[in-house]
Formats: sequence, structure tokens, C-alpha cells
Amino acid sequence: MTAKHDLKPIAGGGLLDRRLFLKKGLTFSAVVLSADVLAQGEHYRPDSSKIAGKPFSNYGLPSQYERETIRWTMGNSMADGNGVSWTPLQDLEGTITPNGLHFERHHNGVPEIDPQQHQLLIHGLVDKSLLFEVEDLLRYPMTSLLCFIECGGNSNAAWRSKPIQTKLGYFHGMASCSEWTGVPLRLLLDEAKLKGRAKWLVAEGADASLMNVSLPLEKALDDCIIALYQNGERIRPENGYPLRLIAPGWEGVVNVKWLRRLHITNRPVMARNETSKYTELMPSGKARQFTFVMEAKSLITHPSFGHKLDKQGFYQISGLAWSGHGKIKKVEVSADGGKTWATADLQEPVLSKCFTRFRIPWQWTGEKVILKSRAIDETGYVQPEREELVKQRGTHGYFHYNAIVSWEIDRDGSITHVYA
Amino acid sequence: MTAKHDLKPIAGGGLLDRRLFLKKGLTFSAVVLSADVLAQGEHYRPDSSKIAGKPFSNYGLPSQYERETIRWTMGNSMADGNGVSWTPLQDLEGTITPNGLHFERHHNGVPEIDPQQHQLLIHGLVDKSLLFEVEDLLRYPMTSLLCFIECGGNSNAAWRSKPIQTKLGYFHGMASCSEWTGVPLRLLLDEAKLKGRAKWLVAEGADASLMNVSLPLEKALDDCIIALYQNGERIRPENGYPLRLIAPGWEGVVNVKWLRRLHITNRPVMARNETSKYTELMPSGKARQFTFVMEAKSLITHPSFGHKLDKQGFYQISGLAWSGHGKIKKVEVSADGGKTWATADLQEPVLSKCFTRFRIPWQWTGEKVILKSRAIDETGYVQPEREELVKQRGTHGYFHYNAIVSWEIDRDGSITHVYA
Repeated sequence: MTAKHDLKPIAGGGLLDRRLFLKKGLTFSAVVLSADVLAQGEHYRPDSSKIAGKPFSNYGLPSQYERETIRWTMGNSMADGNGVSWTPLQDLEGTITPNGLHFERHHNGVPEIDPQQHQLLIHGLVDKSLLFEVEDLLRYPMTSLLCFIECGGNSNAAWRSKPIQTKLGYFHGMASCSEWTGVPLRLLLDEAKLKGRAKWLVAEGADASLMNVSLPLEKALDDCIIALYQNGERIRPENGYPLRLIAPGWEGVVNVKWLRRLHITNRPVMARNETSKYTELMPSGKARQFTFVMEAKSLITHPSFGHKLDKQGFYQISGLAWSGHGKIKKVEVSADGGKTWATADLQEPVLSKCFTRFRIPWQWTGEKVILKSRAIDETGYVQPEREELVKQRGTHGYFHYNAIVSWEIDRDGSITHVYA
Repeated sequence: MTAKHDLKPIAGGGLLDRRLFLKKGLTFSAVVLSADVLAQGEHYRPDSSKIAGKPFSNYGLPSQYERETIRWTMGNSMADGNGVSWTPLQDLEGTITPNGLHFERHHNGVPEIDPQQHQLLIHGLVDKSLLFEVEDLLRYPMTSLLCFIECGGNSNAAWRSKPIQTKLGYFHGMASCSEWTGVPLRLLLDEAKLKGRAKWLVAEGADASLMNVSLPLEKALDDCIIALYQNGERIRPENGYPLRLIAPGWEGVVNVKWLRRLHITNRPVMARNETSKYTELMPSGKARQFTFVMEAKSLITHPSFGHKLDKQGFYQISGLAWSGHGKIKKVEVSADGGKTWATADLQEPVLSKCFTRFRIPWQWTGEKVILKSRAIDETGYVQPEREELVKQRGTHGYFHYNAIVSWEIDRDGSITHVYA
């Protein structure tokens, strides 16, 4: 039996000690069987055990009963290759995003690239201009890293004056997390030999938007890789096959897909996607530019809009936190709209610039409550309340929204997105 | 420029310091462009940039150019649901196995289970017999862990008197690694309340083989989970949808798929799959039984049989190591058939009972060489040479083969599997 004092809330709204589930004797929702029913249960044979199953397959797919766990696609009606597909974060658990559900943001669709026809050019302020075949790069030294990619425009619906009522993944799901493996960019730049004046790198993709963006060489020489593999297998077409630039912790747009060219320069190229887009209009009328790093953010994924609590009792609140500045140090959860906060458990291993799963036990007594989570990263940065973010940046910034998200649980167990 | 002394081999056959690739100035295989060619390259537009790409998709799939990266299936000709499909380890990098390529070992095919019809029964030596709906379990507290699953029969072709000539994954690929998320089994057993005499647990699946196996309660209470998610999404049908027992580090057969029943007993059930199978005949004529833990193992995945070195020069040797006893402490690589060994670099994070990627630089001078790797785990256990393993266990054991694997690189760059 769990001692009574263990069930004493450690914060308002029924939040319980994060280690509570390590204790014995908690009762959740299993049915206790009588001897009669048990006797039947022991001899019960499910239908699935009465017929031989399906044979082996070369490449597996999700169950037919999981057909609703998909990316929600939003193409531009004028150009169906321009838009977004969202990771259904409300249906996932753990920290890895399976490749089939990694979010997409394309400007002119997904090219089908034959890797034997694809090359990577490094030129500009270098001693040697280099051309790499994909086969060459596969022979290069590699490194792996688990990291999130988040579009700079993720969560932008939350700038609206009224809270949008839709599933979590449909407005925060331009964020996914994979194990990327590839060649450290530094190795290739060393081989090309940077000239002294070299300061920036302009990366260009081979798609029909010829997406190009600038990033400082300092980042390129730090932790960027030219990725060839995602979660073990070669990168999927919609994630940049055969080559993607990975800039850990930086906004998605600089993680250029279908990478074909790295132009070394002494200043940024001022491309469309770093001037008219992916910049943020501030209340002063000036715009922020080159705001590369995705700041700390957290989301409660379970429960969230679209789920429904069907009874009172114990729940585990579960969510994701991440920061482009490094590791998540702490996640705090509130069940009383931000009046009191309790520290959630962080799933090990906690890795830099990577999704971190947090969880905390909670006892719902059927009252109306407001759930919130806030992330604190290793730099000490605290995820702001919405009011604070809006005060600082106004509501016309569009990009880099990272305020606390609030879910209101009603007495009937239904869940609404609120600004609170 | 790399100083000459950095290129001094640290072991026979051209093995180089594991940190070498952090140094500057190594030349691999890029083509250096002349000004003329470069001018063309700068203005070159690939075909993929001239037409709009494909639209967004709800669930992504690999590139059409990666059609050969598949599970190799081996069904029994008399019963196509009995057999194996292998993870193509020779084509993968990093440590995660994507769900579509996780190995399969079924005894009577893959059942298609409707989660609303599926239940988990816990009964036997417990105070309360419990019946869980899948929906109930989804509400329970969860934990995530990255771990490998390896079939006890993996690598059994290496017991043969002559080395098999086939791709690495086709004889060592009954091993895969995922992030599993689910309910700690301990929680459910606590809720049922184990009786004092309870010592074993018999787990049964809902498939048409009604697979059942015994495992000691000590393990069940330690780190087993009832998994619902694999790499973020709900488990795939061929990996046990909707519920799989995960027993980290233990042979695949006890990681029961389509889990429907946990019978608590005071002794093992002596099922077919723990008596006539998954036991090992020793040279003495006696058989080993309940050899649950998969001992330390390593494989060089690149280069390996089926790859071909097309030129002399720098390569990165890359491979996987794992141990059912905990973390990998060290992996050593030899390029002279085991005479001398050099320490490989281990990709962080190194996790317990999880695939660990190792890598080491190597300069191939066109000579005939034999590559080997050996894993050492945190208990101090050293992966044995084949000769040593055979001496200890004979060649009729069939299960739990974990000896060092040797690849011979011929002068023409072709690769043979050898016992050396």
C-alpha cells in the first residue's frame, strides 16, 4: 500500500511527487477478476490465435488500426508543393520521431533525386573548389547525433488573438527528433581550405525552389553535419535525400534539404528566406533577422486537445521539452494555471539540442484545472508565459513562438486550448 | 596540414588514431575543380530544380533508389509464417533501427490485432487477477528505454565448419535497436500483488503459435516493460502490436509479442521454446537452458561482405557493439587478423543494453588484410575468438553465438568472410 503522505499533492491541482510511480500499490484502471470470470479468461483463445498470421515483409508499415496517426498536410491551394505536414505529437510517446512522421516544410515539393546524379559543390572563398559524389561522402568519416529540427514558423497560430482549437501536432508539430548520421562539415571545409576572409556559408538545395540560406561559418565549423542517414537508414526523400545539412538547434530553414552547394562568402547572401521570410517584425517596427537558435520550449502532449479524460483518478502528464542552446535542465508543470509548479521527471538520457521527455503523476479529482509546462535549459533560460513573449515581441513576429502552452481540463474531461 | 606523425599507424594493417579525423587537412576523395569546370558548376542547375516536386504525404517511405535496403525474408516453405526477416545492418548507420527494418522472428505469422479486442491478463500466484484493456494501459505511467533486441539464434550460421559468404545482415541481422516506451511491468505486478511463493512469470502471445516462455520474476521486477510504442509511434504489427514484453538485454524469444497473458508461477512452464528450442547442446552432451542474457558482441558493418573497396587510401571502419549485461566499455579493432589491436571511438551516448556505434580511421594500402572487432562490456567480459567459443561450447549449440567476426580484404578490394 502506498502511504497516505505519498499522495499529498506537491503543487496545486493534484500534482504528485515525480517519483511516486516508483512506489508500490497504486491502483489505476485494471479490472479485478472474480474466480468465475478468471476461469473463462484462462481458457479464452483470441481469434488471432486461431488462424496463421501474415507472412514476413521486406519493409514494415504501421497497423491498419493506427491509420489516424499521420502527418496532417497543408499544401498551398495554388502550389501543392508549398506548405507543411505536421508531426502528430499528440499521438506519439518517447523522444524519437519515426521517419514516416517527421514534419515537412517544402517551398516547391519533394524532388526525386537519383543519388548517382547528385553532387555537392564547395566553392567561393576557399583554396580548392571541391566536388563530391554521394558515393565519396559515404566513404568519409561519420558521426551521429540525436537532435530535434523545428521550423522557425512552428506554433505561429499561437500569435493569434484567440487560442486555436486543434490537436497539438497541428500547430506545434513542425518539430521532430531523429538520430542523424553523416560527415562533419568541418572536415569538408578543412579539405577545401577556407580563406582568411571567409565568414559565411550559403547553402543551396537541389529542389525547384533552389532554397538557399546563409549561416555563419562559426556554426558550420562547430557541430554541423552533412547527413546521409536518419534513424539508421538513408534519409527519406521528403527529408532531403540524399544529403541534408544539419545545424543542430537552429531553425529548420537552415537545415537545407537536397543539399547541392555550399558557397563560402564574407557576408550573408540576403536571400528571400532570410529577408522577407524567417525574420520577425518587432513592436518597434524593426525586424529581427538571423535569429537562428530555437529557444527552449515545452509542450504537454498527454493529455492535450483532442484527448478526453474519461474518469477521475491517476494520470501521468507527459510531454516534450527542447532547447537549441543545449540540454534541458528542468521542466516544471502546473495544474492550477501557473500559481504553483512542480518539477517533472526527465527521461534519461537528457541530450543537448534533443527532445527530452518529461513526465509527472497527477490525480484528477474532476475539477476544472489548467495544465501548463515550462522548460528551463542549461543556460538558465526560462520558457516565457505568452503575455511576457507578446509584450517583448508583439504579435506580428510570426516566427520563433515559444511561450508556455495551456490546456484547460473541463469537468467533463474535455480539453481546450487557452491563453491563461 | 596533418603532421606526418599523426598518420603513423597505431596497430598493424594501417589502423590510425581514433581521434585522427578531428585533425585538419586529410584528403579523401573529392574532385578538385579547375576554374573552367567550376564556372560551369556554379551555373549548373540539376534536373530536380527544374520541375516542381511531389506534394506532401501523410506517411513517408524510403527513396525508390533505396529499394535494396530491405529485410531479407526467409519463411519456411511448409509454413510461410514460420521464419525470419533480417535487418540489413550492412546498409545502416548510427544506432537506431527504423521500424520498417526491425528484424522479425515469427513462429506462425503476424496476427492483425484490433486493439479494442485485445486484453492483457495477469493471474496465477497473485492476490488479485487483473485484466487490462489496451486503453487502460495507455493511461498508465510510462518510461522509455533505448535497447537492442537480439534473437538467441542470431549468427547461428557461424557455427558451421566453413564461413558463410553472405551479407552481414543475412546472418547477424536478427538484432535491431529501438526506443521502446511502455508501462514498467513492476507497476502491474505490484497492483496484482505477488504471493510469497511467486518466482516465475510465463508470458504468452496472442498469435497462432501461442508463443509462451518463462522468465524469473526478478527480471520482470527489474527492468521489463510492457511496450506500446516503438521509436515514438505505436508498435508495428510484426513487432507485437498492440503490446510487447520488453526484457532488455535478454534473448529475443522472451520479448513476447502480441502479449496477452502473464501467468505468475513458482517454476518455469517448460514450454517447447525453452526445452527443445532456445537451449544449447554442449560438447558434454548436456544442454544449457535459460541462458537468457545476450553476451557482448560486435560486428564491423562497414566495410563488410558485399561492399568493395574501390581505391587505396583513408577509410573509416564502422560497426556496432552491444551487451545484454550493460554498457559497452571498449571496442578494439584489428587490421592484421588479431595480432595487434587499436581502440575505436565510441559514439556518445553509450547506453546500457543498447547498440553502440564504434568507428576508427584506417588507411588501406592495397595489401591483403583481415579486419576484426571485439567488444568489452562494463563487467569486463571480452568477446571471444571463434576458436575459444567453439572449444567451450562445441558446434551443436546453435544459439548464443557471439564470437569475433573476421573480414578478409583482398588486393582487389573484395571482401570475404573468414574464420581467422
